[in-house]
Amino acid sequence: MTDTPPEKTPVTLLGLGTMGTALARAWLGAGHPVTVWNRTPSRAATLAGARVAKTPAEAVSANPLIVACLLDDTSVEEVLTDTVLTGKDVVNLTTTTPAQARTRAKWAHERGARYLDGGMMAVPPMIGAPESGGYVLYSGSGPLFEQHRATLAVPAGTRYVGEDPGHAALHDVALLSAMYGMFAGAAHAFALLRKEDIDPTTFAPLLADWLTAMAPAVHQTADQLRTGDYTKGVVSTLAMQVAGTPTFLATARDQGVSPELLTPYFTLMHRRLTEATGGDEDLTGVIDLLLRPEPTA
Amino acid sequence: MTDTPPEKTPVTLLGLGTMGTALARAWLGAGHPVTVWNRTPSRAATLAGARVAKTPAEAVSANPLIVACLLDDTSVEEVLTDTVLTGKDVVNLTTTTPAQARTRAKWAHERGARYLDGGMMAVPPMIGAPESGGYVLYSGSGPLFEQHRATLAVPAGTRYVGEDPGHAALHDVALLSAMYGMFAGAAHAFALLRKEDIDPTTFAPLLADWLTAMAPAVHQTADQLRTGDYTKGVVSTLAMQVAGTPTFLATARDQGVSPELLTPYFTLMHRRLTEATGGDEDLTGVIDLLLRPEPTA
Ligand SMILES: NC(=O)c1ccc[n+]([C@@H]2O[C@H](COP(=O)([O-])OP(=O)(O)OC[C@H]3O[C@@H](n4cnc5c(N)ncnc54)[C@H](OP(=O)(O)O)[C@@H]3O)[C@@H](O)[C@H]2O)c1
Ligand SMILES: NC(=O)c1ccc[n+]([C@@H]2O[C@H](COP(=O)([O-])OP(=O)(O)OC[C@H]3O[C@@H](n4cnc5c(N)ncnc54)[C@H](OP(=O)(O)O)[C@@H]3O)[C@@H](O)[C@H]2O)c1
Repeated sequence: MTDTPPEKTPVTLLGLGTMGTALARAWLGAGHPVTVWNRTPSRAATLAGARVAKTPAEAVSANPLIVACLLDDTSVEEVLTDTVLTGKDVVNLTTTTPAQARTRAKWAHERGARYLDGGMMAVPPMIGAPESGGYVLYSGSGPLFEQHRATLAVPAGTRYVGEDPGHAALHDVALLSAMYGMFAGAAHAFALLRKEDIDPTTFAPLLADWLTAMAPAVHQTADQLRTGDYTKGVVSTLAMQVAGTPTFLATARDQGVSPELLTPYFTLMHRRLTEATGGDEDLTGVIDLLLRPEPTA
Repeated sequence: MTDTPPEKTPVTLLGLGTMGTALARAWLGAGHPVTVWNRTPSRAATLAGARVAKTPAEAVSANPLIVACLLDDTSVEEVLTDTVLTGKDVVNLTTTTPAQARTRAKWAHERGARYLDGGMMAVPPMIGAPESGGYVLYSGSGPLFEQHRATLAVPAGTRYVGEDPGHAALHDVALLSAMYGMFAGAAHAFALLRKEDIDPTTFAPLLADWLTAMAPAVHQTADQLRTGDYTKGVVSTLAMQVAGTPTFLATARDQGVSPELLTPYFTLMHRRLTEATGGDEDLTGVIDLLLRPEPTA
């Protein structure tokens, strides 16, 4: 008795940059028929097993599920503009702003397509490697996501964050912005040790462990934001933490390190302490100040 | 047959603030004889089981091992100045700058004491709770640390980072500086979602997981710093990352969020890209710029 393998959803993929190529390989490897198009045709030639379309229009007409992984929103519009999108499911994995994603969703709807936006929390080596922890944030058409859930899960994990087509991009930008903050802090830390006889690779495990131990603090921040009570569960008050900042700045000065990556946050901590009713709060009030910038800013 | 319990090293503790009290409780709980002194005597009265000294001199004379957990370096000098330190082991857990720790070590040596400096990577609830992951960084006298290792390990884990008495404080400041960077990034992230219908407590797990997943990137940074090869193992080049920054800034603008916590790092990324030989590097070159501030800064 032989089993017929279940039919794998065919995928059209527009864009074979580093990321698009990794996606194509993942779907091909999982047995999905893949039709590809890339502006520079030579990049498609190296992709064994894919059907290569000559134009975006030909690629789009080949399958109901269209995945775009291009440079930016402008290239997505350029590539899709002369294609027939009626009845298609467009999944746009190109990094854009939330506003661009919303506009692109409206644009796709006007052309008769369902639209799902994706934000990839992964680098190309994480694609097709579930153990890497990379994943894609999705928002937009819930029915599209449900229908293609298994196919979308082939290259990386999936997290659906709601119907608003801008929310995947917003989550993506928010997570990466937080990461840059962490990297900025780590850069300052490494700079502090630079003129000492301390091997950075000996310090790195302490730093990675400490950042990992402190990352869950964001749960308390979120809870304080949700309830509006910024004193809830406070361990180190804003007043205590502001009192500690001169030690950080003096140490930077002594080590010959510019404090420019630290001072903006310290300045906001100080401003919140001065403006708020008391110093018993956590650091959460700084978030309010970001939304109420100085009139001169 | 009854065993005589092993003798526990007696400890003199100067300072019963929130942290000093937690330390005293941990040592008392583990059966160590503890002599305490605090400027405001009422705080010592509530500490069952401790011997209360009337003056710092009396407290210091009581035991060979002296732990100071006071407000700052000035208060340590004030408290210890009229005590006899000859032959004593001074462990200073007060937060100071590395320079202050070095000066205090010299000061203690001149008075005939061995000196160990500590930087506490913990908040009071983590003291006496080994599962919390809190620990104390130590540097200075290696023989002192070895002799009192078991006693010092009672309130929290220990990590000895070398003979230089300034290095515990330097590691402490470096780790906390990196943490503030991470908190700044998280503040920006939460601010971005603020005017959307997104529950911050739904976003927090994504944020905590992402920061945790990205924290080990510091190992690659350290390796690049050690070897001087900033292109080693690069996945996302500086050029790619700089190209992505307009998306972050446009999203901040669209969400009504001041970019002031992000721009300093982006500015340095951009400067490094302009100044460096190529865009193939990782972000590590930013660290060099912190050590070479603009002449006008
Ligand atoms: N790489 C990552 O680590 C990563 C991570 C997360 C998200 N992303 C996002 O994923 C998307 C793709 O990234 P990538 O790394 O694959 O980029 P990439 O290697 O630079 O590839 C860019 C792709 O876009 C195409 N393209 C650019 N401009 C075009 C235009 N005007 N018309 C048609 N095609 C155009 C390129 O075609 P040619 O081959 O003809 O140049 C290429 O296929 C980007 O939005 C990126 O932000 C990347
Ligand atoms: N709490 C934390 O989360 C934490 C974490 C890591 C490190 N630390 C560090 O640990 C140290 C103690 O922190 P803490 O939270 O226990 O502070 P705290 O609750 O404010 O206590 C400060 C202590 O210093 C004493 N003191 C202040 N000025 C003095 C002076 N001029 N002469 C004599 N005694 C003086 C106070 O005595 P009175 O009772 O008479 O005021 C009190 O015992 C600080 O260096 C702090 O930075 C704290």
